[in-house]
Amino acid sequence: MDAEIIAVGSEMLTQDRVDTNSLYLTGKLNDLGIEVVTKCVIGDARDRLADAVRRALSQTGIVILSGGLGPTEDDVTREAVAQALDRKLVFQPEIAAALEQRFLLMKRKMAEVNKRQAFLVEGAAMLPNDRGTAPGQWIEESGGVVMLLPGPPHELKAMFERQCLPRLARIVPKLAIRTIFYRVTGMPESDLDQLISPVYKKYENPATTILAANGDLQIHLRARCGSEAEADALLAEVAGPIELLLGDRLYSRNGDSLEVVVGDLLRKHLATVAVAESCTGGMLGERFTSVPGSSDYFAGGFITYSNKMKMDLLGVPPEMLEEFGAVSRQTAEAMAIGARRRTGATYALSVTGVAGPDPDGESPVGTMYVGIADAAGAHVAHRQFLGDRQRIRVFTTQMALDLLRRRILGRLVADAPKPVAG
Amino acid sequence: MDAEIIAVGSEMLTQDRVDTNSLYLTGKLNDLGIEVVTKCVIGDARDRLADAVRRALSQTGIVILSGGLGPTEDDVTREAVAQALDRKLVFQPEIAAALEQRFLLMKRKMAEVNKRQAFLVEGAAMLPNDRGTAPGQWIEESGGVVMLLPGPPHELKAMFERQCLPRLARIVPKLAIRTIFYRVTGMPESDLDQLISPVYKKYENPATTILAANGDLQIHLRARCGSEAEADALLAEVAGPIELLLGDRLYSRNGDSLEVVVGDLLRKHLATVAVAESCTGGMLGERFTSVPGSSDYFAGGFITYSNKMKMDLLGVPPEMLEEFGAVSRQTAEAMAIGARRRTGATYALSVTGVAGPDPDGESPVGTMYVGIADAAGAHVAHRQFLGDRQRIRVFTTQMALDLLRRRILGRLVADAPKPVAG
Repeated sequence: MDAEIIAVGSEMLTQDRVDTNSLYLTGKLNDLGIEVVTKCVIGDARDRLADAVRRALSQTGIVILSGGLGPTEDDVTREAVAQALDRKLVFQPEIAAALEQRFLLMKRKMAEVNKRQAFLVEGAAMLPNDRGTAPGQWIEESGGVVMLLPGPPHELKAMFERQCLPRLARIVPKLAIRTIFYRVTGMPESDLDQLISPVYKKYENPATTILAANGDLQIHLRARCGSEAEADALLAEVAGPIELLLGDRLYSRNGDSLEVVVGDLLRKHLATVAVAESCTGGMLGERFTSVPGSSDYFAGGFITYSNKMKMDLLGVPPEMLEEFGAVSRQTAEAMAIGARRRTGATYALSVTGVAGPDPDGESPVGTMYVGIADAAGAHVAHRQFLGDRQRIRVFTTQMALDLLRRRILGRLVADAPKPVAG
Repeated sequence: MDAEIIAVGSEMLTQDRVDTNSLYLTGKLNDLGIEVVTKCVIGDARDRLADAVRRALSQTGIVILSGGLGPTEDDVTREAVAQALDRKLVFQPEIAAALEQRFLLMKRKMAEVNKRQAFLVEGAAMLPNDRGTAPGQWIEESGGVVMLLPGPPHELKAMFERQCLPRLARIVPKLAIRTIFYRVTGMPESDLDQLISPVYKKYENPATTILAANGDLQIHLRARCGSEAEADALLAEVAGPIELLLGDRLYSRNGDSLEVVVGDLLRKHLATVAVAESCTGGMLGERFTSVPGSSDYFAGGFITYSNKMKMDLLGVPPEMLEEFGAVSRQTAEAMAIGARRRTGATYALSVTGVAGPDPDGESPVGTMYVGIADAAGAHVAHRQFLGDRQRIRVFTTQMALDLLRRRILGRLVADAPKPVAG
C-alpha cells in the first residue's frame, strides 16, 4: 500500500523551514509496511491544494495532509479537501461547544473566527486534539483514506499515534515489527559498509540502514513479519554475524550515545573521570555532562588553551613544552597525568592538537593527541583528522570517549607510568 | 513569476532525509522576486515523475528538478522530462567524450553505463558540471523553463550559481536586492515581535523575517527594488526605527554570532576571559573556542561540577557552600573571582545552577546564577529558565556571553569587590 504526504502552509515554502512531520509519518507508515511514494509542500492556495489532493488520491491509497486547520482565512485545508472530494462542509455544534469550553478554561473569550474549526468534511470522523484547538479528520473515499492533521509536530504526533495508527492497523495487513539499533565508532562509514554488507545484503527483510554523523555510525535493522517470533528469528539470523564482524567497535545495542555508554561504565565501576582540554575547549566536558546524573562520575575539568594554563593548572613542565611543543604525545600525557592528580579522579582524559583553520607550527590542521591516565599509567593515541574546525573537534571528543571506553573494558594497555612535575 | 521545485530519488523519501537543495534554491529564487508555490519529492518512478513535471509546467513558469541524473537504471529524470515534454533524448558524442576524459584523469576506465549521462532532451542547453559527472540541462518550453540539476548539494549549488542564475536574470525583470541581518538576545521571540512589528508591518518591501533558536533571535530585512539606491533607502527607512527600539539588545548587524561579537570586543580591548562552569560543564568554553583565533583572548577554564572541585580549583570557601549552597549568588560570585585570580584573565565568567532533569535541593530545575568578575568587582545575574537540560544549558551560555558583552560595553555596573579565600 502506498501513501502521499502533503504539508500545507506558505510558511513551509520559505528558505528556512523544512517539513519534519513527513519524516515522523514516514517512519510510522514504513513500520506498517506502507511506502511513501510522494511528498509535497503546498502554500495556502485552495485550488492548487484541491488539485493536489485529487491527484494524490488517484495515485495512492493513503493521503495525509498536515497543517492549514487553523481558524483564519489562510487555513484552507478543510475547504480544499471538501472541494477535491466534491463533498460539503458540515458545521458541528458539539465541536464548537468544546472549543468554547477550552477558551473558557484559559479564561479567554473565543473569537467568532474559531468556529471555522468546527466544520467537518461530510462523512468525516472527527479526530480529537488534546494539545491544540484544531480537530483532525479521517475521511474514507473509494477504498482509500484521507487524513487531515494539525501542523504543530507535538499535536500531529499525538493525534497520529492515538487516532490514526489504530485505524490504519485495521485496514492494512497486520505485521510484527522488531528492530535493533547498533552504534559503532572508530571507523569510516565506507569501511563499515564494506565489512558488514556481505551479511546484510543477503536480506531484504530485515532492512538495514546505515547512518553516519560526527564520527558516529548507526546501524538500524528492521524486521517485518507475520509474528513477533518470526521477526525475532530473522533479526537474530542477521544480527549474530554482524556483531561478530563489528567486535569491540560496537558500543551500543540499544541506540545509547557514546557519552551515555561511557557514563554507565564509569558508574558500574564506581569510577570517576576528569578532563584536560586544549583545542576542544570544553566540548569533551560538555558531552560528559550532557547526560543527566553525570555528577555521579564526572569529577571536573580544565580548559587549558594556552601553554601558561597547561603549566599553571596542570603542571606540565615548561621544558617539555619547549622541547616537544604543546601539540605532542609528551604534552598530552603530562596533561592527563596532571588533571588526574589535581582532581583525584580514577581516569583523566586529555586533548591537545590543531583544530584549525590555521596550522600550528609544524603540526598540520587536524593533528590530535588524546591522552588517558589512570592508576596503571598513561597512554596517548594519535590521529590525523580532516575537515573544518567543528568537525575536527567533534571527531576528537568521539575518539577520547572511545579511548576511555576501551580502557575501562581492558581493551587498551597503558604504557608504564612516568613522573610529571606539578 | 512562480516556481516549483521537484527533488527526485527514492532515498529522499526515507525517514532520515530532508531535501535541503530546495531551501537553497528557494532563497536564490526569492532574491530574484520568484515565488516557490509547490515543492515535491518523488521516488525513482518514471511515469509518476513525468506526470509531476507536466502538472508543474501547467501551473508555474519555472520547474527545477534535482537528482536522478546519475548513470544507473534508477536515474529516470532525463527520460521522465523527455516523456513529459513529448521530446526525444539525443545522444551527445562530445558529452560522452568529456566523460571519458574525466575517467582517464582519475586513471579509471569509464563503464558503458555512464554513457546514459550523455543524453540531452531535444532542444536542451547542456549545463556543465565541474564537480561531478552529471551534466545539467536547461530546457525552454512554451514561455516557461525546466531545469535538470544534479542532486549532490555542492554540485547543484555551483551549477545553479554559474549556469542558471545568469540565464534566469535574462528572463525575469531585474531587481536590486539589499539585506540586513540583525541578531538580538535577552528577550523572547514574542516580545521582540510585539516591539518591532508596529514598524515592519507597515512595509511589504522590505520583507521582514524573524527566526528564533536557542535564545538567539535573528531579524532578516530584505528590500527588492529597481535600483540599489532605492533598496538602500527603503532599508534605511525601516532599519532606523527598528535599531532604536532594539537598543543594546541588538548585538550584531551582519549576522555574526554572539561568541564572534564578544570575541571581537575582547580582542579590541586587548582583554582576556576565563570561565568557571558548573552545570554547563564546558559548553561555555566550547562556544568561546569554536571561533578560529580565540586563543588571542580565551585564557582558560575550569569545569567544577562538584563542591570539592569548586573549593580545590577555584578556592570557593567551604563555609560559603555550606551556608548558601552551590546554586547561589554567593557561590557564583566566588567562582568568578576565583577563576579570574587563578588565570590572571581580564574577565572571568562563572555558571552555577540546576540543568535538570531533577531539582537540586531547594532550587527548581532551570535556576541559574551567572557571575562576572573583573578588576572593578563582581556582578551576578539570576535567571529562571524553562525546558529540558540541553535547552537550559544553551540559554545559560547565551546569557553568560551577553553579560560579558554588556560588561565590556560599560552597560553593566559591577557590585563592589568582595574578598574570597583561595
